[in-house]
Amino acid sequence: MNKSAFHKLSYGVYAVTAQDGTRPVGCIANSAMQITSNPPSIAVSINKDNFTHSVIQKTKNFAISILSEQTDPAIIGTFGFQSSRDADKFTTTAYEMQNGLPVLQDICAWFTVEVTQQMDAGTHTVFLGTVTDCEVRSNATPMTYAYYHAVLKGKSPKAAPTYVEESEQPAVSSKNRYVCTICGYIYEGESLPTDFVCPICKQPASAFKLLT
Amino acid sequence: MNKSAFHKLSYGVYAVTAQDGTRPVGCIANSAMQITSNPPSIAVSINKDNFTHSVIQKTKNFAISILSEQTDPAIIGTFGFQSSRDADKFTTTAYEMQNGLPVLQDICAWFTVEVTQQMDAGTHTVFLGTVTDCEVRSNATPMTYAYYHAVLKGKSPKAAPTYVEESEQPAVSSKNRYVCTICGYIYEGESLPTDFVCPICKQPASAFKLLT
Repeated sequence: MNKSAFHKLSYGVYAVTAQDGTRPVGCIANSAMQITSNPPSIAVSINKDNFTHSVIQKTKNFAISILSEQTDPAIIGTFGFQSSRDADKFTTTAYEMQNGLPVLQDICAWFTVEVTQQMDAGTHTVFLGTVTDCEVRSNATPMTYAYYHAVLKGKSPKAAPTYVEESEQPAVSSKNRYVCTICGYIYEGESLPTDFVCPICKQPASAFKLLT
Repeated sequence: MNKSAFHKLSYGVYAVTAQDGTRPVGCIANSAMQITSNPPSIAVSINKDNFTHSVIQKTKNFAISILSEQTDPAIIGTFGFQSSRDADKFTTTAYEMQNGLPVLQDICAWFTVEVTQQMDAGTHTVFLGTVTDCEVRSNATPMTYAYYHAVLKGKSPKAAPTYVEESEQPAVSSKNRYVCTICGYIYEGESLPTDFVCPICKQPASAFKLLT
């Protein structure tokens, strides 16, 4: 089994958002796909560790904002590497309310979705829902995950190490190895400094995972 | 609601295959995504009208072959526009057996998957399964759905009409309108000739749908 095969799957880059009472929440996801045309339905896969997951499960509603190649990449840092538990991601990000749900403004298109079914997949839940409304916001090219890695991070997808590949390589020393979950940069050392910033993609220490 | 928003979602192009006793079957799908890393799992959405759907439901196993930009586009015609009910798609397509499942050879990578859960989504079923094996076959760029439309068909995604967009436009005459489900070409007439061939992408009449 060569898990690099997983990197050949193609994805977009999405902000999945929900409304927790008066508070908008959201996270970044790659796993979204249309399931049926009639009625129009979409499925997303969300990690149970994300605060947004708990809000979707409670409210049975979410929105998807499709990022474009023109979208400010800082949105990925804000929505992908902070938790809505601690931070209000929407103070620095332009958004609007649609059907009671927050959608971002600097995007290609948005959907509002009412959950009809969900599938427990262990670490993640697959939420399937009916699209209640959707609009196009820009004709910019939708951002793909491959574009994000290749262009925004200035690295080629082929060369980009990932936790899957890296964890399969024997450790070259007895030091711990931490991988940036965004760009694949590897830090080696006894521990990762809490103020560490990825030299490649400028993500904070919280974006790193210990390779085991 | 502007259903063009659906065209901003990003997908790859995949052959989803299964084994019906001694007979390999398969179809083209865009809707595949990794759901979890541990265990490695993947979900696909398959139309219930596809013969491959019935075989997956019976055998609880399927394989995914990821097409690349170098893959012979004829594979899409073979797997996307014939039914395994009538045609043996594998007589003209190089393949090999992996874990009892057929995978194509002219591809980026393949997965074999054992179904663990499924979700009935009306016209489609979402099959979720554990990846039992996977291998990379080429470093060619994975084919995206956008690439397929933009490059292989010589049309820009922005200009490409689709059944969703077209069906929302008022009919310009009392004639029937048929859309090529591959490239979006519109044929107008009282009926679509059975020997009609799409002038853009060379698909047969069976690839057309009546716009209602």
